[in-house]
Amino acid sequence: MSATSSAPQNSVCVAVVGVGLVGSEFINQLLSFPKPTPFRIVSISSSKINLFHPEGLTITPTSWKSELTGALNKLDFQGLIRELSGLVTPSQKVVLVDNTSSEDIARLYPTILTFGIEIITPNKKAYSGDLKLYESILSAGLESGARFLNEATVGAGLPIISTLKDLVATGDKIVKIEGVFSGTMSYIFNEFSTGQSNGPSFSSVVSVAREKGYTEPHPADDLNGADVARKLTILSRYIPSLRSSLPDGYKSVSTTSLVPAQLEGIATGDKFIQKLPEFDSHFQEMREQAARVGKVLRFVGVIDVESGTIKADLEKYPNTHPFATSLGGSDNIVMFHTERYSPRPLIVQGAGAGAAVTAMGVMSDLLKLV
Amino acid sequence: MSATSSAPQNSVCVAVVGVGLVGSEFINQLLSFPKPTPFRIVSISSSKINLFHPEGLTITPTSWKSELTGALNKLDFQGLIRELSGLVTPSQKVVLVDNTSSEDIARLYPTILTFGIEIITPNKKAYSGDLKLYESILSAGLESGARFLNEATVGAGLPIISTLKDLVATGDKIVKIEGVFSGTMSYIFNEFSTGQSNGPSFSSVVSVAREKGYTEPHPADDLNGADVARKLTILSRYIPSLRSSLPDGYKSVSTTSLVPAQLEGIATGDKFIQKLPEFDSHFQEMREQAARVGKVLRFVGVIDVESGTIKADLEKYPNTHPFATSLGGSDNIVMFHTERYSPRPLIVQGAGAGAAVTAMGVMSDLLKLV
Ligand SMILES: NC(=O)c1ccc[n+]([C@@H]2O[C@H](COP(=O)([O-])OP(=O)(O)OC[C@H]3O[C@@H](n4cnc5c(N)ncnc54)[C@H](OP(=O)(O)O)[C@@H]3O)[C@@H](O)[C@H]2O)c1
Ligand SMILES: NC(=O)c1ccc[n+]([C@@H]2O[C@H](COP(=O)([O-])OP(=O)(O)OC[C@H]3O[C@@H](n4cnc5c(N)ncnc54)[C@H](OP(=O)(O)O)[C@@H]3O)[C@@H](O)[C@H]2O)c1
Repeated sequence: MSATSSAPQNSVCVAVVGVGLVGSEFINQLLSFPKPTPFRIVSISSSKINLFHPEGLTITPTSWKSELTGALNKLDFQGLIRELSGLVTPSQKVVLVDNTSSEDIARLYPTILTFGIEIITPNKKAYSGDLKLYESILSAGLESGARFLNEATVGAGLPIISTLKDLVATGDKIVKIEGVFSGTMSYIFNEFSTGQSNGPSFSSVVSVAREKGYTEPHPADDLNGADVARKLTILSRYIPSLRSSLPDGYKSVSTTSLVPAQLEGIATGDKFIQKLPEFDSHFQEMREQAARVGKVLRFVGVIDVESGTIKADLEKYPNTHPFATSLGGSDNIVMFHTERYSPRPLIVQGAGAGAAVTAMGVMSDLLKLV
Repeated sequence: MSATSSAPQNSVCVAVVGVGLVGSEFINQLLSFPKPTPFRIVSISSSKINLFHPEGLTITPTSWKSELTGALNKLDFQGLIRELSGLVTPSQKVVLVDNTSSEDIARLYPTILTFGIEIITPNKKAYSGDLKLYESILSAGLESGARFLNEATVGAGLPIISTLKDLVATGDKIVKIEGVFSGTMSYIFNEFSTGQSNGPSFSSVVSVAREKGYTEPHPADDLNGADVARKLTILSRYIPSLRSSLPDGYKSVSTTSLVPAQLEGIATGDKFIQKLPEFDSHFQEMREQAARVGKVLRFVGVIDVESGTIKADLEKYPNTHPFATSLGGSDNIVMFHTERYSPRPLIVQGAGAGAAVTAMGVMSDLLKLV
């Protein structure tokens, strides 16, 4: 692999770690950016191999995968970070785009930021983890001036974190944030609970969702509510009065798991799906109860700022509520109730998962650096 | 008036023109920004008087109005721009925040940008005017590097222009934008057409809206659809294939005016309101026709990218459509149908007018400069 001959001045060096669904799509979006581009991809890594050239890789949307597969460099992540730190100058930004879900990489963010390397990521691990990691990221960034941007961690490409930041930075007071934050949970309950007292069984809806690729391989990883708890943790850290309220991160969020107690710890997704029908009557009963009072079931996240309540739970909403009328597919929806947006909230809605829209959220962060 | 004793380095000098509803609220938001602030207000002007100090005005939220009223400097706008241009340095940005609705000021934007002064504004006149002005703004900005930001021109504080820019910049293809863009029209039709075949008369709804201060003093200025046409023009200029499609700006938009032909040219709002009941049966008939097929009336703006259609019109939507179920008050709602957000659109909704949320839109643009 050779370097581009004329690396432009004042460019942003981009190092991409993680080339799965989101990472691949991100690289393609970046390579399709109109010329002359301020961006220069200096490194691409999977969990095992690494391509690196300080003056920029010469790659195309069709070539980069085979170049990476053919590369011989084993990934030495800490070594890569040292190399990248050498590229930071007053007129050249260096950004690590972390498209993994690695906790190990997230733990290195403070070090990376200290080197003056900016971080952009859809990886929820860091900001939804324990308070100490979040605080070290914050202070490392403040000290070096390197930015940490994670728009795509909540709602993928939807403007959710940026909207929350703008509300706070312009002096609005957040009263409550309420939303459907999990595309999987959205799909499941949009199908399962439509306001009628009957309909398809819960297990059949989950099973179809799994076949369509909407759930994790093991559906319990969605049904346990942890993904929603992580997103609530991330959002609450952008709200000044809640910044330090979750010492153990998402584990401190009051979360109602939909995994039946008897099915906890089941090793495989297949086994889980096989056993789930035994619990259909429980979900059917809840659906009936809701329908009787003109309501639907939705798995939502709620941040109530004044009371400090942060919870992920299955709630009932009237058939006329936007969570009942306006949602479809695996849409996310977020309502910001604030001092200014009162009595009616600011609402953002749309697909909250998928490689293309998640990569878009990552790209939109990258554009903030130029 | 005296200068602040220690003007910080690397600050952004802010010159505010227009201190009406939005301008006053903006100044208060800016003065409430957490310390240490990167912003320094160097000038405040109404249409007649001006305060200016190159090192920053010493003002507080409670003092600035009386200081301005007591000032003796007549506003010499072109002179002010020359003074401001002298403050631009590589480490000091200067931004003109135009909170007027002046066409004259909008015509000077190209000159102002050429001086390296950035412009932030909720004033729709420039980007919704003729193509030539828009193009000179664009090229002046490109040449000097000074930015032109106008988030608050569409949907006030809602993230509408920023979302459109992100979609385009990350390579998504806009298919259609459809929305309720006028808070006034939103209120009028949310009240007038609820899916029932009868309800309050059109003239009574308009009259109440006027009493509540939701309309312009002369309601024809809202009912003629020009405000919606202006917003569509602004949005279409952020869509590459439509950038040059409206040579005369908002006048080139296909706009259906709701002002009865016989009432056109009526001089005062009072007279207009007095005559409007004569046309109630016409609106009542449309409402009935819509209700008979399970629909409501909404005054919407539509940009259909492939066909190049850009229109502001009264349309019918099914009772189950978000424009029917989800809107209330004077909410705006915008649906972005794109290649990625398909089949379900990205939706942004909320109050689209009012001083506090409009000033927030202006402030959020200002934050992009630091
Ligand atoms: N997909 C979505 O809709 C979506 C939405 C919002 C957020 N996200 C987040 O986006 C991130 C990526 O998601 P994805 O769907 O693209 O996941 P994925 O397809 O599983 O890809 C993960 C990538 O990360 C690499 N990786 C894992 N651990 C690594 C390590 N320690 N060092 C270097 N590389 C490592 C993997 O390498 P190998 O190829 O060598 O295994 C793989 O290329 C996750 O944090 C996810 O939560 C995804
Ligand atoms: N209000 C909203 O909800 C809203 C929402 C979106 C966008 N906007 C836009 O925001 C802008 C301001 O709206 P507003 O409601 O604040 O209007 P406003 O209350 O009428 O205030 C206008 C201000 O501009 C000043 N002005 C007018 N022409 C001027 C000139 N040539 N030079 C210097 N100053 C001039 C006026 O000065 P005097 O005080 O001396 O008359 C006044 O201070 C408008 O472009 C409007 O379309 C408003």
